[in-house]
Amino acid sequence: MTNSKLNIDRSALEQLLHKRFFLAPSFEIYEGVKGLYDFGPTGTALQLNLISMWRQHFVIEEDMLEVDCSIITPSKVFETSGHVAKFADWMCRDTVSHDFCRADHLVEEVLEARLEGDALARKLAGMAVAGGDDAGAGGAAKPSGKKSKKKGGAAAAAKLDDAVAKEYCNVLAQLDNYDGEALGALITKYEIRNPDTGNEVTAPMPFNLMFDTSIGPTGALKGYLRPETAQGQFMNFSRLLDFNNQKMPFASAMVGRSFRNEISPRMGILRVREFTMAEVEHYVDPENKVHPRFDEIAGLELPLLQASCQLAGSTEPVYMSIGDAVAKGIINNQTLGYFLGRIYLYLMKIGIRTDLLRFRQHMDNEMAHYACDCWDAEIATSHGWIECVGCADRSAYDLSNHAEATKKKLCVQENLPEPIVREMLVCEPNSKVFGPRLRRAAKPVEDYLKALPEDRLAALRDALAKDGRAVVTLADSAADGDHEITADMVTIEKQTITEHVRVYTPNVIEPSFGIGRIMYALIEHSYNVRASDGQRGVFSFNAQVAPFKCLVLPLSNNACFAKPLLDAARRLRAAGVPARIDDAASASIGRRYARNDELGTPFAITVDFQTAKDDTVTLRERDTTNQIRGPQEEIVKLVKDLVDGSTTWGAIVSRYELIDTAALENDA
Amino acid sequence: MTNSKLNIDRSALEQLLHKRFFLAPSFEIYEGVKGLYDFGPTGTALQLNLISMWRQHFVIEEDMLEVDCSIITPSKVFETSGHVAKFADWMCRDTVSHDFCRADHLVEEVLEARLEGDALARKLAGMAVAGGDDAGAGGAAKPSGKKSKKKGGAAAAAKLDDAVAKEYCNVLAQLDNYDGEALGALITKYEIRNPDTGNEVTAPMPFNLMFDTSIGPTGALKGYLRPETAQGQFMNFSRLLDFNNQKMPFASAMVGRSFRNEISPRMGILRVREFTMAEVEHYVDPENKVHPRFDEIAGLELPLLQASCQLAGSTEPVYMSIGDAVAKGIINNQTLGYFLGRIYLYLMKIGIRTDLLRFRQHMDNEMAHYACDCWDAEIATSHGWIECVGCADRSAYDLSNHAEATKKKLCVQENLPEPIVREMLVCEPNSKVFGPRLRRAAKPVEDYLKALPEDRLAALRDALAKDGRAVVTLADSAADGDHEITADMVTIEKQTITEHVRVYTPNVIEPSFGIGRIMYALIEHSYNVRASDGQRGVFSFNAQVAPFKCLVLPLSNNACFAKPLLDAARRLRAAGVPARIDDAASASIGRRYARNDELGTPFAITVDFQTAKDDTVTLRERDTTNQIRGPQEEIVKLVKDLVDGSTTWGAIVSRYELIDTAALENDA
Repeated sequence: MTNSKLNIDRSALEQLLHKRFFLAPSFEIYEGVKGLYDFGPTGTALQLNLISMWRQHFVIEEDMLEVDCSIITPSKVFETSGHVAKFADWMCRDTVSHDFCRADHLVEEVLEARLEGDALARKLAGMAVAGGDDAGAGGAAKPSGKKSKKKGGAAAAAKLDDAVAKEYCNVLAQLDNYDGEALGALITKYEIRNPDTGNEVTAPMPFNLMFDTSIGPTGALKGYLRPETAQGQFMNFSRLLDFNNQKMPFASAMVGRSFRNEISPRMGILRVREFTMAEVEHYVDPENKVHPRFDEIAGLELPLLQASCQLAGSTEPVYMSIGDAVAKGIINNQTLGYFLGRIYLYLMKIGIRTDLLRFRQHMDNEMAHYACDCWDAEIATSHGWIECVGCADRSAYDLSNHAEATKKKLCVQENLPEPIVREMLVCEPNSKVFGPRLRRAAKPVEDYLKALPEDRLAALRDALAKDGRAVVTLADSAADGDHEITADMVTIEKQTITEHVRVYTPNVIEPSFGIGRIMYALIEHSYNVRASDGQRGVFSFNAQVAPFKCLVLPLSNNACFAKPLLDAARRLRAAGVPARIDDAASASIGRRYARNDELGTPFAITVDFQTAKDDTVTLRERDTTNQIRGPQEEIVKLVKDLVDGSTTWGAIVSRYELIDTAALENDA
Repeated sequence: MTNSKLNIDRSALEQLLHKRFFLAPSFEIYEGVKGLYDFGPTGTALQLNLISMWRQHFVIEEDMLEVDCSIITPSKVFETSGHVAKFADWMCRDTVSHDFCRADHLVEEVLEARLEGDALARKLAGMAVAGGDDAGAGGAAKPSGKKSKKKGGAAAAAKLDDAVAKEYCNVLAQLDNYDGEALGALITKYEIRNPDTGNEVTAPMPFNLMFDTSIGPTGALKGYLRPETAQGQFMNFSRLLDFNNQKMPFASAMVGRSFRNEISPRMGILRVREFTMAEVEHYVDPENKVHPRFDEIAGLELPLLQASCQLAGSTEPVYMSIGDAVAKGIINNQTLGYFLGRIYLYLMKIGIRTDLLRFRQHMDNEMAHYACDCWDAEIATSHGWIECVGCADRSAYDLSNHAEATKKKLCVQENLPEPIVREMLVCEPNSKVFGPRLRRAAKPVEDYLKALPEDRLAALRDALAKDGRAVVTLADSAADGDHEITADMVTIEKQTITEHVRVYTPNVIEPSFGIGRIMYALIEHSYNVRASDGQRGVFSFNAQVAPFKCLVLPLSNNACFAKPLLDAARRLRAAGVPARIDDAASASIGRRYARNDELGTPFAITVDFQTAKDDTVTLRERDTTNQIRGPQEEIVKLVKDLVDGSTTWGAIVSRYELIDTAALENDA
């Protein structure tokens, strides 16, 4: 797909999401807070299903160690991890209104609006020749958002020079690669102003995205709300390695809430201040990043958009098997490739359209401060391509920094299959002289000598042999400065050393999922409009993902339906299928089908007058609106099989006669 | 149970919980932060199972509307809810060291220590007569905590006057009922000092328990981390009522993290700063609090400890059926009673010992600021009775306050089955004169007149008839003061009014579960020590709750076991039973059984040399350590049935021969 924006009527979709309470702005009765959303019963059930399938796909099938760590984190953890210094976005301020905006979003919004104006001008010029209607910017253009509406409608037609338009496209393709200074230069060069006011903006300045708070009654202990779940997992590395009986590689995983104080949240639940993440930290030997199950995904072809292509201005991914991409070094290693494959399979399983999915490699400046390689799974929505899963190689960044800051060992001791035997220079202090002579400095000097590389130890031995003495200089708080060593204080000679263990700090491969973003993308991909039915919306969620599995409803308000209705619901629940009853007497049967289509409920069992005679019920499938009839017990069994995936609707209709339901469906 | 403290070796238990990574202090490598804990793989799985059983028991079986709301909450919400003003604990400060402590905990700790010293003195006096050993304070006493250890051992023996000891007991029985002033009086009266330092403490002052932060880049919008999930649910009341097709009663539910900035956290995960709650808000007609399913639990006998008994110094609950308790007005209404019953059934289902459970009613001063009646499900642990579930009647407190603050309607409109027709006095302004005469005051005066009770309207009518004029006095910012009404301005006469709807603000019954506390209590109730086996710990979790369901292990490191091992694990997983493999070659089979007993894993399948011959495996049950043997496929089916509850170990051993496994078990 060249065009990155899915063409749907987003305002109709958003209305539907609010009406059927997938989600709503938090604290709406208090006028809300930007970037905070609540999930209603529909959204909550959908989210729980996505998480439970994630847990099955990753935690269970890959035998990961799931943990649940604290959200509130003392500042020293994020000082070490680099988040206090570097977890910031670039922010500009309107010089008159003093409103804040994100610098990259400002550049993007203004340049995209200019390109839209250009496209419109070119289209109008074309229509002036061909004749035509006064339609809007068309499916390819960005739906006009709030901001352009404020200014009184769609972008004004204004043709750009071909070269300028091309330059704008190039800038947009690598927008994530600019730092504050570069964004400031673009703002100056392209005379970018706040589109809401027309005012100039300040140069970009960094704004840290972490929410802070203070812990305990003194107010002295500063804390932050975690912006990712990863650090909590790193804190527990040693315990997890113990739990795994010291075996490598292994992975920990966590599902939980994270927080980012976005400068100016937008795009509904795609850029929010509070969100649910699911993260895996896979610990791997830096010298051996093969993956035992790599063969299972090596043949999968993924749409890959490399960093080098983006820098050349391209947004077209190339399809390539994971095996090839690893072999060619496009994907750095097997483990990274394995997880890209597993991410692809997960997204496919929940119902993301694979033609609207790509894997985009981060460019150098874009990479988070801790990452050495990173690929994003991006999904096309009506807002354009959205990063939904990041898959980064964090190398040994976090574990080695935390080890250094805390003086705790965060490393793996591996028994070598064959001990390594080698000759090496060893320095042994002569305890009778060494300690008494150096006194308090003895321990630091001994540590210093033992840690000396072999060439420098040889030089020291030679100096002692020649001069009988040498001076070593320490930069150590306990023994700062020069210390004299004499030949009688140490023995430096070759020894045969046998090493049985290897000690290393693992690297971390981190697939990180934004559950809310994935959910929103899935909602857009599942959204259909039933043209035959007054433009009613239908969500075609698969049965495993669907918030509610089966609706049970009576044809009408007649009292004779009450008992068979409860029977059917009880049978379904006993079979492990959550069932909802819709017996609202005020709504017609067609209207009740339609409102459950709007919830994405895949199946409906209807109790009617025939049920009273022979205990048969009808079963309706949401997407085809086809119905069959059968004995209640048999139909319940079919629903169970459909929900757990052991049969399909196609297989069922080949065995049953379809019944005529036009009258029911048109009753809405 | 008279004695409120469960007699277990808590230090051994805590070691085990850390070793098998149920939980650990958060940020331990950074020396930790008081009141923050991480759950490891064992604790996380246990917690997930408790939540999933909660969801089944409440959300699914009661057809509740589950939501997932924001944690960060703008301050105006908590200003309305009363939390900004009132959600505080009483805090004292050491006058020399300036350490903080919670006033009620200080009183409790000091008086309990004095009572312990008294008990010890009485015991020593007894032993001096009978002769005896120098054992500690015995099972009934509080295990000596950190603080008393700091001071060099257990409480010193010091006999109290009988009257003083009785007074202390009385104070402790109603400790939750004292406010700051009363706690201050106790501290003065009993000369209570900081036991860590011996210093005097300040008078108690309030400390608000909410963590605060600021939202957005300006820093101008103050927010708090929610201390309960309830407010998010109330914010969505109208949407939820719509979602439920305007039907009453109904309930919303939420599982999520909440935060309380405890003054001085203690008792492990029982008093923490961040915790997972599961809350139900059940909306009910205030004039009709019957529950349609009350009959199902009316016969359940619960141990009830009424407020009046506590005020009389008693801590002994009385067993009473819920039906009786509601009939006698001890439990306020059917809906409250119904939920107490459901809470009892849930706790029983997960494995809480019902002999260590009681329902304690709140005393007047103890009640949260929003509650009008409240019962706590308290569970006995080695720390004493712990509140694990609160069940409060919040009346219409929250909905009516939020409605008033936001001017939004948070109420139910109910169609009356029969319209109510009645004669009533109605005041109609004469628009030609009323508006022009009163000008800006017209609207407020009209509203005032329309809201007048009938008797005052009649008085006004009579006054106008008699004098032709009257004065009404408003206290309204828009029309403050006196306004003259003349007879020509209004018509006041009897009209026939037909009311078709009734409008009311629902009351809220709120069962609120502390998942971490329930989990900890369950861990203590499930903890056993296998005396025959070097005092090894065993957690006797039932199969549904157990973090891991089935262990699969080879007898030894022999290569011939690899294939049948994977076969068995794959078969289990395919049958939906999460299986863990323990093939750590370094550990004997007995040691591997033992360490999985420490995880509470109920079943183990062992592959041995017999397996190679006839594809049979053994199945071991954790609590009895008994084993049977059978074909692999059959054993896998048995495990599945055991885990989903369709058979029991007792039923199985009656059909199979037990095999002799003494050699294996003693191999640890």
